[in-house]
Amino acid sequence: MSELIEKLNWRYATKKMDPSKTVSEDKVERILEAARLAPTSSGLQPFEVIVVTNKDVRAKIQEIAWNQAQVTEGSHLLVFAAWDNYTVERINHMFDLTNDERGFKNEGFENYRQMLLGMYPGRDADVNFEHAARQAYIGFGMAVAAAAFEGVDATPMEGFDAAKLDEILGLREKGLRSVTILPLGYRAAEGDWLAGLKKVRRPKDEFVSVVA
Amino acid sequence: MSELIEKLNWRYATKKMDPSKTVSEDKVERILEAARLAPTSSGLQPFEVIVVTNKDVRAKIQEIAWNQAQVTEGSHLLVFAAWDNYTVERINHMFDLTNDERGFKNEGFENYRQMLLGMYPGRDADVNFEHAARQAYIGFGMAVAAAAFEGVDATPMEGFDAAKLDEILGLREKGLRSVTILPLGYRAAEGDWLAGLKKVRRPKDEFVSVVA
Repeated sequence: MSELIEKLNWRYATKKMDPSKTVSEDKVERILEAARLAPTSSGLQPFEVIVVTNKDVRAKIQEIAWNQAQVTEGSHLLVFAAWDNYTVERINHMFDLTNDERGFKNEGFENYRQMLLGMYPGRDADVNFEHAARQAYIGFGMAVAAAAFEGVDATPMEGFDAAKLDEILGLREKGLRSVTILPLGYRAAEGDWLAGLKKVRRPKDEFVSVVA
Repeated sequence: MSELIEKLNWRYATKKMDPSKTVSEDKVERILEAARLAPTSSGLQPFEVIVVTNKDVRAKIQEIAWNQAQVTEGSHLLVFAAWDNYTVERINHMFDLTNDERGFKNEGFENYRQMLLGMYPGRDADVNFEHAARQAYIGFGMAVAAAAFEGVDATPMEGFDAAKLDEILGLREKGLRSVTILPLGYRAAEGDWLAGLKKVRRPKDEFVSVVA
């Protein structure tokens, strides 16, 4: 067993966090960095992460998240928000940034830019959002893995009113739509009904098949 | 920098793999285990992974994947396939398995089962598939992270004809639809145009915002 697998077994969707404990900034930075390094379709990174530490804002979010207490008991709340659409500006920004960082233009890469410009911005916004949301989930998975690797508890959540969360954080004005949230903190295991229970996954033979 | 972040910086979407190198089975196992351990909505794990090592089958898949050579140059191809729908049977199976593994029934958990049974199976299959697909992307992200952690190269791919891949692997008959594929292998860096180029991501201040 690798250290990563060991940590993935250690983690669980923490139901009760200890509000007296704060995740250190260096750990939060590494969790965010894992999300930032996540691979995404065509490298567009069509999502952002909003880190909410403000207690009043988190209390409002808790209200529209089935009152799940981890939202305020944790020290940080990560909100994963996907682009509401692929636009010419957004696509060009990533290609221009890449050219700038690498210090040269490449014909194949420029052709690829034109292909995306011809394909994405003309598509239905909801189709584009769904595609962007899937990319956000890659980053979300990496952040969950990174939190476990840091020994930080986290609770992956889809159970919230996304439209209301977008309103609380003013996401629509920024062209973003929330897709998942991730409270970070430390388990209060003695008060957590799930802490002592066995982690259950489908056995390998129901999850993996081989074409050899 | 943690070992995980170091490895996430090391990884890249490998464009050329060395066909003479094979990823060891213990590494493949740990990569699959990371996907199996991924958190999913309500713990339903609505996806499976198909491991294709067969060369002829991979050659067919390469044809419907923009002829991307990594599909056959790698030693293993992981296919992530999401449930085509949430059914009563699938939901009950996960809840029954959980009760069996934990050795008891819990009223709150049973109420939660009834809520899902009342909500998911009656919903449009496409809505359910999109939701399942997002969960598959969490596992996909974790598998990419685990491959990097193992020092195994991998190329996350959405660029393939999903309907044709489903046909090649007989996925629809199993109630599955392919969403992403991940060739595993070892980089042939000297022949890979991307190997020497800088990894580009949006800078942190364009990716993260803070509400403090």
